[in-house]
Amino acid sequence: MKIKVTQEKLSKALNNISRVAISKATLPILNNVLIRVDSKKVSLTTTNLDMAIIDFLPVSSSEDGVITIPARLLAEFVSNLPRGENIEIESKNDKVTISAGKYSSTINGAPADDFPELPEINEKNAVIYKIGVDDFKTSVSQVVVASSNDLTRPALTGVFFNTDGSILRIAATDGYRLAEKKIIDNVESEVKAIVPTNSLQEVLRSISDDVEEIEISFNDDLVRFRLGEVEIISKLIDASFPDYQKLIPKNPEIKVILNREELTRVTKLAALFSKSVGGSIICESKTPDTFLVKSIANEFGENDSKIETEVEKDGKINLNSRFLLDALNALEDSEVNFQFSGHVAPVILKNQHNDKYIHIIMPLNS
Amino acid sequence: MKIKVTQEKLSKALNNISRVAISKATLPILNNVLIRVDSKKVSLTTTNLDMAIIDFLPVSSSEDGVITIPARLLAEFVSNLPRGENIEIESKNDKVTISAGKYSSTINGAPADDFPELPEINEKNAVIYKIGVDDFKTSVSQVVVASSNDLTRPALTGVFFNTDGSILRIAATDGYRLAEKKIIDNVESEVKAIVPTNSLQEVLRSISDDVEEIEISFNDDLVRFRLGEVEIISKLIDASFPDYQKLIPKNPEIKVILNREELTRVTKLAALFSKSVGGSIICESKTPDTFLVKSIANEFGENDSKIETEVEKDGKINLNSRFLLDALNALEDSEVNFQFSGHVAPVILKNQHNDKYIHIIMPLNS
Repeated sequence: MKIKVTQEKLSKALNNISRVAISKATLPILNNVLIRVDSKKVSLTTTNLDMAIIDFLPVSSSEDGVITIPARLLAEFVSNLPRGENIEIESKNDKVTISAGKYSSTINGAPADDFPELPEINEKNAVIYKIGVDDFKTSVSQVVVASSNDLTRPALTGVFFNTDGSILRIAATDGYRLAEKKIIDNVESEVKAIVPTNSLQEVLRSISDDVEEIEISFNDDLVRFRLGEVEIISKLIDASFPDYQKLIPKNPEIKVILNREELTRVTKLAALFSKSVGGSIICESKTPDTFLVKSIANEFGENDSKIETEVEKDGKINLNSRFLLDALNALEDSEVNFQFSGHVAPVILKNQHNDKYIHIIMPLNS
Repeated sequence: MKIKVTQEKLSKALNNISRVAISKATLPILNNVLIRVDSKKVSLTTTNLDMAIIDFLPVSSSEDGVITIPARLLAEFVSNLPRGENIEIESKNDKVTISAGKYSSTINGAPADDFPELPEINEKNAVIYKIGVDDFKTSVSQVVVASSNDLTRPALTGVFFNTDGSILRIAATDGYRLAEKKIIDNVESEVKAIVPTNSLQEVLRSISDDVEEIEISFNDDLVRFRLGEVEIISKLIDASFPDYQKLIPKNPEIKVILNREELTRVTKLAALFSKSVGGSIICESKTPDTFLVKSIANEFGENDSKIETEVEKDGKINLNSRFLLDALNALEDSEVNFQFSGHVAPVILKNQHNDKYIHIIMPLNS
């Protein structure tokens, strides 16, 4: 195995894919990057068994072969070499020599036979979507915030890609809040698949400036994201996602329009006083023109702020301030629609001028 | 107690001094900032018992009084208020009301009687130095890197201010390396005092852009740094600093001039391969023109790099790569002087064109 490549290209690829390699893995080869050269096609692969990331590297010359070497050691070594150098990587048995101008190192590799590669997507049976990179970034960021880390409920640790007629939606919930975004509105094939949040976050991190479109391919138990020269393949989560549509209140009684920046500020102020009560704050609408955000009085003191806005009905709800701040951060418009029905039903938050995104927060006991 | 002040000024002062307040202190009042108003002079003070930081705040109006309230809560509250607001702080008994336009909060305070203020410097007996802020910043940063965190050897957790004739020097050592800088060369009063590294780092963090000169005043057991409207008072460390001058080798046998950037790069490369051997790397001079930096071969592989330079004598020394990188980072010239005498005596590192700073590293066993 032999490749010649510029420091910039190699360093960029290694920095991206080495994040997925697991250091101190119980299976030591998961520390390693697989370097494969096959008829001038060079690929670098790392995997954590749940997902794999593959970077197809443009090289100036190559000789076929395959080897694995510690990914982070190689990434750090290459990133410390001078920009502009041409780097040559050559393997002989399990010794890999990396040389660049007057710099040279030998890294101990391991045979590729033991490297656990993920299966490939079967292109024939796959359901394929394409989406602009900016749309994808925004939408996934808006939704993953509501997903869970609780591994005992695997369905909630992912994002649910699901079609409703010709609309592709993504949704996530941790049981306390829910976020849904309509991302494509003219799809032809159906899908119902839960993509691990971790894999999606890896996709977000791997998007480089030159990528304009992302291709997403699903088959039975895998998803593949293609972004320029990078491919991320992930297992799907084998579980059923809750029937979340029925969690969205249909006719909230109280609808208030609030300036997003102002609501964010008063929520932060109230949150400072709510640390000893688990972040709980009170939101209250008072006719004809007042929306209040208050902390519950405690050992530190108390805080309450007023926002002027048109109010048609009195109401009161206790919310987790962190969840409210996450929702406000995920919304985009300068005005947001805050809809609720008293202290038991969930709050709905939406952008004032756009219905594609919806964020639901369950109230706290009051 | 009552003050009126702009959000910008108050927020800047609180963000600076609230770092020193200890959250979760066993003495809860150490969480608090002391606000004192005395004949239009307003001061904010926090302390961790070893040091205190005082910010003299320019206010637009005030009423005398004194109170303490949780420093970080107040700092976060004020930093979330809109810029440009005028903030009013008023205490009644132990309740402190903070209001700004339509925002208002009540924070529970505590009486100032229990607040442990540090003594003031006795101006009459004090030894006072003045130094330009850039000189001070650079010099202290160059020296603190060699100080220790080991609380069982208190003298080594500080920086030793000491005069030699008319020269004021600062020095620090952790027993493995030593850094010394001559900071003022025409002083009239003598000093020998160990200033805690933590306090000096607090001084560095507190320097704002508008400060041009720092006044340093020592008396028997205290030091005071005056930087614009901020004063930092610290206890001195009551211990004797090692007689470090005798640790500096007088006539090193081998002197090599090396490009600092190049030496930094090859040290980083070798360091990557030396993690399993405690960061130990080998530096070797070979006549007539080679300086080698090598890792010791191990499970990961090995690395060696050459730098071309004039060499008059062969020699070899094992060093901790992190210490060498710290020293190279503290030096300033593009060329550095690397001086040693084989593998037992310490290495001396200096700037090529300036003798004010010297950095010594003890060798590792080879």
